[in-house]
Amino acid sequence: MNVLQEIPALNKEIGDQVRSYINQLTKPVGSLGRLEEIAIELAEMTASPFPSVTPPGVIVFAADHGVAKEGVSAYPQEVTAQMVLNFLNGGAAINVFSRQIGAKFTVVDVGVATDLKGEGLISKKVRYGTENFCEKDAMSIEEAKQAVAIGYEQAEAMITGGIKCLIVGEMGIANTTASSTILALLSGKEIESLVGKGTGIPDEKLAHKRDVIQRALSARNPDVNDPLDILSKVGGLEIAAMAGAMLAGASHRIPILVDGFICSVAALIAKLFNPRVVDYMILGHRSKESGHQVAIDMLGKQPLLDLGMRLGEGSGAAVAFPLLQFATKMLSEMATFSSAQISNRHDPSL
Amino acid sequence: MNVLQEIPALNKEIGDQVRSYINQLTKPVGSLGRLEEIAIELAEMTASPFPSVTPPGVIVFAADHGVAKEGVSAYPQEVTAQMVLNFLNGGAAINVFSRQIGAKFTVVDVGVATDLKGEGLISKKVRYGTENFCEKDAMSIEEAKQAVAIGYEQAEAMITGGIKCLIVGEMGIANTTASSTILALLSGKEIESLVGKGTGIPDEKLAHKRDVIQRALSARNPDVNDPLDILSKVGGLEIAAMAGAMLAGASHRIPILVDGFICSVAALIAKLFNPRVVDYMILGHRSKESGHQVAIDMLGKQPLLDLGMRLGEGSGAAVAFPLLQFATKMLSEMATFSSAQISNRHDPSL
Repeated sequence: MNVLQEIPALNKEIGDQVRSYINQLTKPVGSLGRLEEIAIELAEMTASPFPSVTPPGVIVFAADHGVAKEGVSAYPQEVTAQMVLNFLNGGAAINVFSRQIGAKFTVVDVGVATDLKGEGLISKKVRYGTENFCEKDAMSIEEAKQAVAIGYEQAEAMITGGIKCLIVGEMGIANTTASSTILALLSGKEIESLVGKGTGIPDEKLAHKRDVIQRALSARNPDVNDPLDILSKVGGLEIAAMAGAMLAGASHRIPILVDGFICSVAALIAKLFNPRVVDYMILGHRSKESGHQVAIDMLGKQPLLDLGMRLGEGSGAAVAFPLLQFATKMLSEMATFSSAQISNRHDPSL
Repeated sequence: MNVLQEIPALNKEIGDQVRSYINQLTKPVGSLGRLEEIAIELAEMTASPFPSVTPPGVIVFAADHGVAKEGVSAYPQEVTAQMVLNFLNGGAAINVFSRQIGAKFTVVDVGVATDLKGEGLISKKVRYGTENFCEKDAMSIEEAKQAVAIGYEQAEAMITGGIKCLIVGEMGIANTTASSTILALLSGKEIESLVGKGTGIPDEKLAHKRDVIQRALSARNPDVNDPLDILSKVGGLEIAAMAGAMLAGASHRIPILVDGFICSVAALIAKLFNPRVVDYMILGHRSKESGHQVAIDMLGKQPLLDLGMRLGEGSGAAVAFPLLQFATKMLSEMATFSSAQISNRHDPSL
């Protein structure tokens, strides 16, 4: 398996066909707004004039973060493992939303700090959590590669299984700290503007979190152009796996519905591996986590939803998924002016 | 049937119970943002701690507008009737979206200008379109009452049939002109800021449309506090019916998912009949039609979606509907910290 296999170019020709077909549907030109754009984008990604996005697949990657020892999260580290069990029992938000959208759902342990078992769990533990990257590299280059490859393989398995749209989620106490560190590096922006409250830490802890990130960046000094160097020095195992999964999606022409802050940072890592992966991404929502807008701008995308969500797990992407369905059904099920024998506008050229 | 029967107050007690229950669900407090607010609102509306919104019901009211003779639309008047047939054949956007959300769907002819027949059509024609309100009153007070009552009865029939959420849509060539006229009256704002391109008229026609509205308001001079006077002088039959339908929804504690510009103006008319009706409304989306924000502000609501849509038919509300489902499923299906045996935050009081 080569995670850097070629990503095909978007099929702009089919996109143009779909654009002109949409203008024949029984509605004023452009009146379905963003849904029309989504339909065109999905057609270009899938190279199909009538794309389908069902069933979607949701993969949640879970891993722990050594930097949690610095006290950067509102929750204790054990919550990562407890939430994995919650995922397996179907009680987390992403379970509920995945069922609602008819998604295939898997949970992958790519590096939880404790031993975990449970029906349905895919155990691919690279190591028992990362190191505290204030003190040493989070993981080795080899481990980072391994985590990326696991993500790639898991997404590919889902794609082989028939999913038509990919959602990647995450669970990992302290992973907004790792993500903010990566984003500070990639964006070159002031840490103050990037680092948010994550699961909900109080103000005094926020200052501490920013300080931890500043110290880590100075001490680790990752190469801003090298995704494996970044992942190994300040990354997270689940962030690496998410990047790998997105590369697999794009390689197979599967639309990727991106979640919030952490997922968008993983998307930026994937972009460093291969910039074309971004062509296959649609941003589900704007997270309330303060750094998300910076990541969004760096991806050059406009999120579909803005609902003040900041949960992660893939939840914001899952909630945006029905919009993709509406867009595809618009294409495949609406009548045209001629098929419905409806008078077109006074001047149809407008 | 009395369209002004009492609308019950929201059940704030159940809302408070739901708010505190949401804080026990396995997610950081507040992290599902607007979905949490929706869940509380739906609980207050339905007086149920675990509200359901399925199945939703979509009623499209169709009628013609005499003011179309002034050349204010990009499409000829015959399109109203043709689109009704499209609705009956299942080929319009609202058909596609209604199927996608599992809605019960009906089309009501409340005043199309030609005779119409078709399987599934509910024929309740009050008159063959309105008069051109530049020249005379759109309809009589009695006809306005009749149209409101038809809307009320049709919604009530759907509610008796089991729908748990109400979406009202419309079809009527030139109805953005009628709606803009009503909104100019109700808001007291400059016509320039309220009147948009509707189905997509060119700039020179837009100036003409604004002039038509100005002339109509001067000539008709409706009483800003009297919804029946407004409807009879510058209204539309479908706008009257939509207002009636919303009053029925609120009277029966059925959440109303409001569509775009025309629907929001109908909501303002309903508010004149009984201000409490607004408590039962959730705004589906922000339309691209320029006056919509004014109507939104007057309803005191925040739309869920902002996707540049401006089709009408109820389409924007239908597209927003899955968000209500996610909110209700969050309540009924997510585990709590205690049921899932998950450690709560370091300081759960935060």
